Formats: sequence, structure tokens, C-alpha cells
Amino acid sequence: MMIPAAINLGIELRVLAETAEESASLAVTALGSHLDMEDVVRFARDVDVVTFDHEHVPQRILRELVDSGVAVRPGPHALLYAQDKLLMRERLSELGLPVPDWARVETEEQIDRFLEDHGGRAVLKTASGGYDGKGVRVVASGAEASDWIALGNPLLIEELVDFHRELAQVIARRPSGDLASWPVVESVQRNGVCTEVIAPAPLSSGKIADVAESIARTVAESLDVSGVLAVELFETTDERLLVNELAMRPHNTGHWTIDGATTSQFEQHLRAVLDLPLGATSPREPWSVMVNILGGPQSGSLADRYPAVFADQPSVKVHNYGKDPRPGRKVGHVTAVGTDLDQVAFEARAAALHFQD
Amino acid sequence: MMIPAAINLGIELRVLAETAEESASLAVTALGSHLDMEDVVRFARDVDVVTFDHEHVPQRILRELVDSGVAVRPGPHALLYAQDKLLMRERLSELGLPVPDWARVETEEQIDRFLEDHGGRAVLKTASGGYDGKGVRVVASGAEASDWIALGNPLLIEELVDFHRELAQVIARRPSGDLASWPVVESVQRNGVCTEVIAPAPLSSGKIADVAESIARTVAESLDVSGVLAVELFETTDERLLVNELAMRPHNTGHWTIDGATTSQFEQHLRAVLDLPLGATSPREPWSVMVNILGGPQSGSLADRYPAVFADQPSVKVHNYGKDPRPGRKVGHVTAVGTDLDQVAFEARAAALHFQD
Repeated sequence: MMIPAAINLGIELRVLAETAEESASLAVTALGSHLDMEDVVRFARDVDVVTFDHEHVPQRILRELVDSGVAVRPGPHALLYAQDKLLMRERLSELGLPVPDWARVETEEQIDRFLEDHGGRAVLKTASGGYDGKGVRVVASGAEASDWIALGNPLLIEELVDFHRELAQVIARRPSGDLASWPVVESVQRNGVCTEVIAPAPLSSGKIADVAESIARTVAESLDVSGVLAVELFETTDERLLVNELAMRPHNTGHWTIDGATTSQFEQHLRAVLDLPLGATSPREPWSVMVNILGGPQSGSLADRYPAVFADQPSVKVHNYGKDPRPGRKVGHVTAVGTDLDQVAFEARAAALHFQD
Repeated sequence: MMIPAAINLGIELRVLAETAEESASLAVTALGSHLDMEDVVRFARDVDVVTFDHEHVPQRILRELVDSGVAVRPGPHALLYAQDKLLMRERLSELGLPVPDWARVETEEQIDRFLEDHGGRAVLKTASGGYDGKGVRVVASGAEASDWIALGNPLLIEELVDFHRELAQVIARRPSGDLASWPVVESVQRNGVCTEVIAPAPLSSGKIADVAESIARTVAESLDVSGVLAVELFETTDERLLVNELAMRPHNTGHWTIDGATTSQFEQHLRAVLDLPLGATSPREPWSVMVNILGGPQSGSLADRYPAVFADQPSVKVHNYGKDPRPGRKVGHVTAVGTDLDQVAFEARAAALHFQD
């Protein structure tokens, strides 16, 4: 999704990919692994800026790039907090930002102790490597975590937050300091996976939006983030916001901006990492609803459904990632925009359903 | 500009280009000439549909493709009228569509005769090969056309229309018949080159818009056009519309749709030539203004101006075609959208100026 934004601005995008078949193959692709020092260093030699569409490039490789003079944005000093949830929790707590109760645990006993103080159930997370519900489980005893404990890495345990819904604040920051944020959105989740985003989040009060933006601004500035930052938030039943996760890249909760905002998160990320002035983040219409296409159709391809989708929903924008359908996999998304939220949500959901029959 | 639309829909676009350096090189590119039968036939072998971003593929090549079973859209029987202005004038006259007074001329005497009946000055055009003011000149005597007459091809001569301004109606049609049109636009020209498009055209009456759409619909249906059709129109000082030119492809007067309409002309062209249901053509905002970047900066590249443009006009969308600057060459465009036409036009013109200093 970065490629169209790069084409419009005439920016040459080069992608380090493990296979030529990966869906980014429309950009100039260098083959290699993001886990391999040599591959990454060779790739970085000919570009102006290195940036990311995931957080999994090891710190030692990132630091090697920085040491050799490559512009890495966001830098490893910031990306660290999107890579390691324990460090993230520590740092956000130091900054006084609202987070769930949490602890670092390494033994079953420590987990049991945390559970005693937090109602007998809690969320256990691996510090790194998790996404879309992976690396996260709810536990009621330390014994249930014996497999993760056995791996020997410290784990993050958190209170089960009594939340009303999940929100996300996406913001961009350029190295020289300017920030620009889109409206806070509601992120509807099922089994730990985002299924739908409503932009802006239908809010009981404007205060929530101000608090969300202020949290994201503090994170972006305090951690010296460059590029797009997504702050996933819990809105508690008593109307507080707690930071759930951070992502330092264009994020699923910002996909609506492609069709729904003056500047998309992908164009903004390019502007930000190139240290160019940021674009306007105003919504194009009062409401945007983005629905993920999860798994795809039982048989055939997404494109097989175009006749039905296009005839039924001529205003909906379809984004097909060109990935093979697989249960639960995000293979595309659809976005509808307009003035009436019910109508917009109906259109987007109806279109997405056609792709998942 | 077709590539981002193709990426979004997961449609694989292959481009036949003469050199790898052409700006379409982000798509899968086959090297070859559109004038070479073998190159085109080889290219067409592996695609579902062949379409065009210019009108210059010879009829004999197009007909060979059709005869060998390739889906060519628009087909040669339609494209003919975008390739040959004499045939176009004949056909539109037969259809009873409003056109300037015209004649086919092959001698200086025939030109002089036409001039006698039309106030002593007229527009002379080569039947094929012209664009952006090339192949067009105003003459006051047959002698002035001796060089073109000497080439031995019949020429088109037309009355100098007393027009108030130029409009353009862009419409799309799929082979199975459905049509969808965007609002008629005003196309501001300088020296035969479109410099700016205002969408929709600020109209004295809704009747003009209806007539423009009806003309485009008649052309699309009568000529059996597939894909996007642009009908360039003169609005005369007495408020009549006359057809000036036809283009059967996404057209400069439709570039505003990328940022200003629910479905861009590029996405629509893909839908149409694949015979998929057409997308909604509603404007995203009341006004869009597209300004061409002609020639580019005196020195340096368009991207060198991004810091100034982006800081000055954060809402303007920039399209950089990645072409080397050259006097008069269209190297990009900018689009602004919004509710106030004066403001929108100011933003777009201000951004374009930065690129042409």
C-alpha cells in the first residue's frame, strides 16, 4: 500500500523481500532476509532512508546501519519500544502515561502472585514477536504458562482491563519535530484481530479525542519516533484511556486514510521519514468505515467477487493485497466514506461479506 | 497513473514500452514498439485485455489482434475515430452531433474556398498524429499550408469557433453497455495545451451539463467505445456546445478524479475494459482544481521543491510523473479539493507555481 503513494510522489521505493512472489514485488525488490546482517547492509547501501512495514528487524542490525551512517527512520532507539513490550511498558510508566497494571514475570510463582492481586485472570504476553493475537493469552494460573516460562524469556503480565471498546490514535512525526495526527478511531476486534475501523471514533465527549491525541503526541516526542506511530488504546468502562500497544509504521487502524483522509498514512509515512513537511490529515467525509477482508472466499480469488461487489456497492473502495486466501489472513480491506455512519458501515460490511462467502 | 489503481485492485498491469526508463517501469514491462506487429502480438499473447494510454497503435496491428481473438478495448472500430480526425468529423456529423463547420481539403484552392466562406481564417488540422497543439494551425490562406499539402494526406479544416471557453465530458462505458460519467469540467488552455481543469465546470445553467453528458453518451454508444472516453467541447459565446476532439483513454481533463472523485478515471478504465460494474463518479468535494506542471523547474527536480510546496500547501495532492523537465512538457500535476472554489484554485495554482519557478 506504500507503493501507490510512492508512485504519486515519484519516490523510488525499494523493498527488501524474502521472495520475489511477495506482494510488494511491484516495487524494485532486493531479495534477502531482514534477519540477515549482510542482506540488510547491502540493501541499505543504495537508499536515502531505510524504513519498515514491520518491527522485526533485529536491533543489532539496525544499530549497525546507524553506525555506518544510514538514515534509519524510525531509529532503533525508538523502534525498540515497538519491538519489546516489556521495555514499552516500563518506558510508558516512567513517562506517566496511563497503562494497565503490569509486571515482568519469569516464573510460574510470579504469575500466580500477579493473579492473586488481579482477580485471578490476567493477560500474558511474550515481550516480542507477537501480532494479531499471537503471543498473547489469558491465563488463570502460572501452570498454564509453563511452555512460555520454559523458553526462558521474561514475559509481560497485565491486568484484564474492563474496557468498553478499543480505540487507536495514529500520528506522524518527522525527525525535525513536526507532528500531524488523524482523528482517533474505533478499532473493532474479534479474537485479537482488528475486523473493522470506524473513523472518527463515535465519541461520547470531545475530551476522549483530546486525551488520545495528547498520549500519542507524548509517545512520539518522548521516544523520538520518526514516521507513522499507531497507539492502540483501551477505553475503559469508566471512560479512561489506557495504552495497549504501539506500532511504528503505517497500521491497520490507519488504512481508512487511503480513501478517507486528505493525506493517507502511507503518503504521510513517506513524507515523515524523508523529513518533508507533513500533509493535512482532515477526513474527506464525516465518516469512514474500513472492514478487513479476513481469509477471503471459500473458493476462487477476491477478483472473482468483483462483479458482485462492484454492482452492489459502487462507492466502496476495494484494496486487494494479492495474497492467497487462508483462514484468518488479512488479504485485503474495503473502505466506505460518507455523511451517514449507518449507511457507510452498511456499505463497507456488505462489500466485505461478498469477499468472505 | 494507472498503476496505483491496478495495485489497489490487485490487477496485474503489463506495459509495452520502448525503453525500460519510461515512467511506467513500475509495472511489469515488456520492451517493444507499439508500431511493430511482432512486438504487439507477442505482448498481447499473455494478457486478458489490451488497452491503451495513447491512440497511436496502427489499425492493421489492432485488427490483427482482434482477428486472433485478443480482447482489444476500446476496439479498433471505435479507436479509429480517436485516431483520424476526418473520420471523426464525418461520423459525428452523420450522428447529428454538434461540430464546428468543417471540410476535407487536399489542395490550397480547397482551403482558400473554405476560408472565403468562413471569415478568412480557419483551423487546419492533420487528420492523425496531433496532440497538445501539435498538428494544428490557424491559416489565412491555402499557401500557408503548402508544406502539409505537399505531404499528400487529406487535411481537416474547421471554422474558427467563437467560443467562451472549453469544456470536457469524461465518461466510461463497459462492453456490456453500462455508462458512468463524471461532471462536465472546464478545461483552461494556453497555446493549445491544457493548463488547468475546474471540476465541475462553473455553469451558467444545468442545461449545459445535461447536453454535455448527452453528447458523450451518444458518442460512447454510437461508436461502441469501451473504457474511458473524453469528449472535448467548445462552449460558444451563444451557449451552444460543439465537439472539438475525442480521446478514448484516461485523459488530462479527468486527472482531477484521482483525488476528487469516488472512482478515479484510471480505476474506472480498468473496470470498464475488464467489463466489471463501473464505480460511483460522485465528486468527493464540491470543487476540484487540477493544475498541470508544465516544463518543471528551471533547475533541479520536482522533488527538490517538495519542502516548499508541502509546507505551503499541506492539502494539495502532488503527482510527479518522474519525467525529466523539458519546456512545455507535462511532468506532473497537482489537485486541490474543497468547498470554496476560489480557495481551491488558489491552493492548486500556488502549489503548481512552486514547481515551475
